[in-house]
Order: sequence, then structure tokens, then C-alpha cells
Amino acid sequence: MPEARLADWRGRIDAALAAAIGRDDGTPDMLRAAMRHAVLLGGKRIRPLLALAAADVTGKADAALPAAVAVELVHAYSLVHDDLPSMDNDSLRRGQPTVHIAFDEATAVLAGDALQTLAFDVLACAPLPAATIVELVRTLAMATGGAGMCGGQSLDLAATGHSAGTTVAALEHLHALKTGALIRAAVRMGGVSAGAPAAMLDALDRHAKAFGLAFQIRDDLLDVEADSTQLGKTAGKDAAQGKATFPAVLGIDASRSRISGLEEQMLGALSAFGAEADALRALGRLATQRAY
Amino acid sequence: MPEARLADWRGRIDAALAAAIGRDDGTPDMLRAAMRHAVLLGGKRIRPLLALAAADVTGKADAALPAAVAVELVHAYSLVHDDLPSMDNDSLRRGQPTVHIAFDEATAVLAGDALQTLAFDVLACAPLPAATIVELVRTLAMATGGAGMCGGQSLDLAATGHSAGTTVAALEHLHALKTGALIRAAVRMGGVSAGAPAAMLDALDRHAKAFGLAFQIRDDLLDVEADSTQLGKTAGKDAAQGKATFPAVLGIDASRSRISGLEEQMLGALSAFGAEADALRALGRLATQRAY
Repeated sequence: MPEARLADWRGRIDAALAAAIGRDDGTPDMLRAAMRHAVLLGGKRIRPLLALAAADVTGKADAALPAAVAVELVHAYSLVHDDLPSMDNDSLRRGQPTVHIAFDEATAVLAGDALQTLAFDVLACAPLPAATIVELVRTLAMATGGAGMCGGQSLDLAATGHSAGTTVAALEHLHALKTGALIRAAVRMGGVSAGAPAAMLDALDRHAKAFGLAFQIRDDLLDVEADSTQLGKTAGKDAAQGKATFPAVLGIDASRSRISGLEEQMLGALSAFGAEADALRALGRLATQRAY
Repeated sequence: MPEARLADWRGRIDAALAAAIGRDDGTPDMLRAAMRHAVLLGGKRIRPLLALAAADVTGKADAALPAAVAVELVHAYSLVHDDLPSMDNDSLRRGQPTVHIAFDEATAVLAGDALQTLAFDVLACAPLPAATIVELVRTLAMATGGAGMCGGQSLDLAATGHSAGTTVAALEHLHALKTGALIRAAVRMGGVSAGAPAAMLDALDRHAKAFGLAFQIRDDLLDVEADSTQLGKTAGKDAAQGKATFPAVLGIDASRSRISGLEEQMLGALSAFGAEADALRALGRLATQRAY
């Protein structure tokens, strides 16, 4: 049952995240509390689960735990900064006040900064060969920086309020950077941690690419369809903020059939694998069918 | 002449910083422009020079160029975020408008974030043995995160406006994190890049520790003594913001004699070395005698 394995992994990911933030290193109390708030009060743990599931294809899910933690720390840092008043100005996240509301804005900036650093710290301290660690650091940095997640957020801010003429291609490019790059990095880092050969990494990456886009389209649909209580964050914000979304640009029906096409791509990418890829397949279903 | 060597190194550091930020990787134009603004419009380059000077003790200054670049990128990111309205709210830096003034606040947050990522990216791509790279990543992360620079800034914000009862010990602890950790990391990373043995790293670290404190006390004295044009940043801000400083807590004369004591510690730490440590000695003089 891949679902049971995912539930078990989720527990281990949460424990490892708590250990990383809780280590006795002299971090001032308030900063640490803000980091805990950002990471430990919920979250679906999709990205770290992807890392473990990708490593599980070689039978070595355990090896990917540091990569899983690092990816989730980066994701958490990005949410803290994206929620800031100067960015998306959001006060609710995972059903809780955002960090700058629960603490203050300066602490939110610093907590995000320190979480990013901690991600690279966790990788550097991983019980893995040095060459593997270097590859993990490089992969995470490429996916996270100006040519990845940060660049995507910059494009998103520039496009906000100017959604009228947005094309599907521009929207896909934006999300390939903003959310896709880190999802692909999670999968690749899982595979790299487990020593997966290049051909396997390629297949995993095809899965991750389709997964990332399907996940984002589903996210956009949920913003239209669900309410804030279900989401744990403010619903209907995309339209209110003048953001281009897949339902707005493509229409709701075409967005749904786009997801179906991506589901087929995901299954195709994993066709060479047997039960060892079942956790990845289960996560794929989660991405496309989730209701929150 | 160590001064000529430092001037040569400064040119190579600036070129390497420009190359790191300018690489053709798909970073959106506005984000890249903000990153350039943060890094390339000046700066004394003290930290990267320390990295090269530390490596020069083994005769291999060149090996430390990636470490030098990474440390300066982290320093630049920290200035961008420290200058934000929610932090120190400063509009002038290196004689130029700060990033959130020249661009906007969201772009300043993202540019700082992307500069931090780029620092780790540069290390991961360094032409050095993998084990050396892992040690560099670990050293930079430890110095930069919650237990280092970020933690120090958090303590500084918490103490601002409550400077009345500050002790010298508390002030030294704050600065050991906020500025000292990255300076020590710069020196250690230079030594590690050049393959310096442990005993040499220890001597270099004693120098770096004294250097960092002397540098900070001099900084505090300059904030009292100099004007904004000389400094390229707003003078007299520490007192205006209710920050504890060494002149305020120790007095000006005692601050100056504290620097003299640290100068002796620096020279003592390097006493086992000959001319190969002359660049470090010259930087020590710069730290304690600089007029801006």
C-alpha cells in the first residue's frame, strides 16, 4: 500500500524537520520560534514526499531524507517571504496566521533567510558521499535562485495586475520557474541521493515536469472552487489580485482536461518501472485529484 | 607590496562577482538588475579579500576565489535585507540608493534571497575537490544562518531601543554573530580552499576573531565620527535608532584602546608566518585604521 508508506514517510519528514530546526546551535529563541512556526504547523509535505518516492524507485528511500528536509525548508522559506506585505500580503497560511502576523515583518524576513541557509546546511551535513552532496547543493541552488523559484516569483509580481494579455505559454513559463523548478529538484535530489543512474533520473524528471504543471493547474482550480477553510489559506485571491491563472486563461474545462493529459504523461514516464514506483504514482494521483 | 596585491585581488573579485551575477541562466532582467545593484556598485570587499589573503598564506590565493565570491554575495544579500523598511530602514548604502529604493521592496526581498542562493551555487560549481566544497558549504551555512549572521541581526533588532542596560559582553556576543561569524568564515573558507592544515586554520581563526571585533568597533566609532558623504551610508544612525554601540557602552577612548589590544592579538596570531601573511597583516591595518 503506497498510501501507508507515504503516511509513514510524512511522520519521518516532520520529525527530521523538527530536529533540523531544533538543534542546539545558539539560534536566538524568537528567530527559532518563527522558523518553527513557518515549517512545523502543517503543510502537505508534497516536495519531500516526492524526494523519498523518487529514491524509493531504487529501494533506497532513506538516503533521500536530508534532500527531502532541505527541499521543504526552501519551500517554507519561500512561503514566508511570498506572504510578506510587500509581496502577496497574505495573513493566513495552512490555517494559521502567517509569520509576519504571528511575529513581525523583520522576523519573517530573517526566518525565511535562516530557513534557506538551513536547507544548505542540512545537505552539507548529510551522511552521503561528498560528490553526491555537491550535486545536491548544485541542484537545489539552480532550482531556487534567480533562474528558478525566485525568478518565477519576480515574474509573477511583475505580471500581477497585467493578466489581460497573458498567454498559456507565458503562464507555463512562470510556473515552470516559480513552482516547477523546486518540484523537479525534489525528485532529482531524491534520485541523486539514492545513486540513481542517468536514464532513471531522466524518466523521473519527465514525471516531475508533468507533476509540477498538473499540481499548479489543480492549485489554480482550487483557488476558484474551494473556500478558505478547506484550503487553510485565503481562497479567491488570485482573481482579487489580478493574477493570471490557468482557469482564467484556458477556461475551467480546458484546465481539467489539461490535467488529464498530464496524468497520462506521468504514467507514461514511469511505465518502465514496477511496484517500486507506486509511491510516485500515488503522489501523482494526490497532485491531480486533491481537494485542498 | 601587499597593498598592490590587494588592489589586484580586488579587481579579480569584482570581475568574478560580475561574472557570477551576469551568467546566462534565465534570471529575469529586473531581478538580475537588482542583484547587480546590490553587489556591483561599490563595497570595500573586505571579506573576499580576507579569503584570498588567508589562502595566500599557503601560496594558493587563486583557489579561494569561489569562496571569496560566495562570502561577498552573502554579505551583499544581508545588506539588502538589513536595509529594508521593516529592518534598519536605510535609504543610502555605498553612496547609492538602497535596493528597495532603487527598485521596490518586493524586488529587494527577492534579490537578497537570490544572492544567498547564488553564494551556495558558486561554491557547488567551484573547481575544487568535492570534500573541500562540502566543507565550504558547511562553513558558510553555519556562519550565515540562525546561529550566525541571521541570529545576530535578530538579536540586534530585539535590542534596538533597549540599549540602556547593554553590557560589553552582550554587545560582543551580538557582533560575534552578526558580523564576526561571516568574517571568520571568510578566513576559514580561504584556508580550506587552499588546503591549509588544521594548525594553520586555528592561527588564521585567531586572527579573524580579533579582526572581526576590531572591524566592528571601528565601524561604531566611524558612525560617531564621520559624516554620511565619507561613509557612503547614513552616519549617526546607531544613536538615532537607539542601538547599543562600543563607544556608547565603553566610551570612545576605551573603544580605541580596545582596538589597539586587538591589533596586538592579530599580529600575535600571525607570528608564526613570514611574508606569506603580509596581505592578512595589511588587511588588519585597514580594519583598524580605516577612515570610512
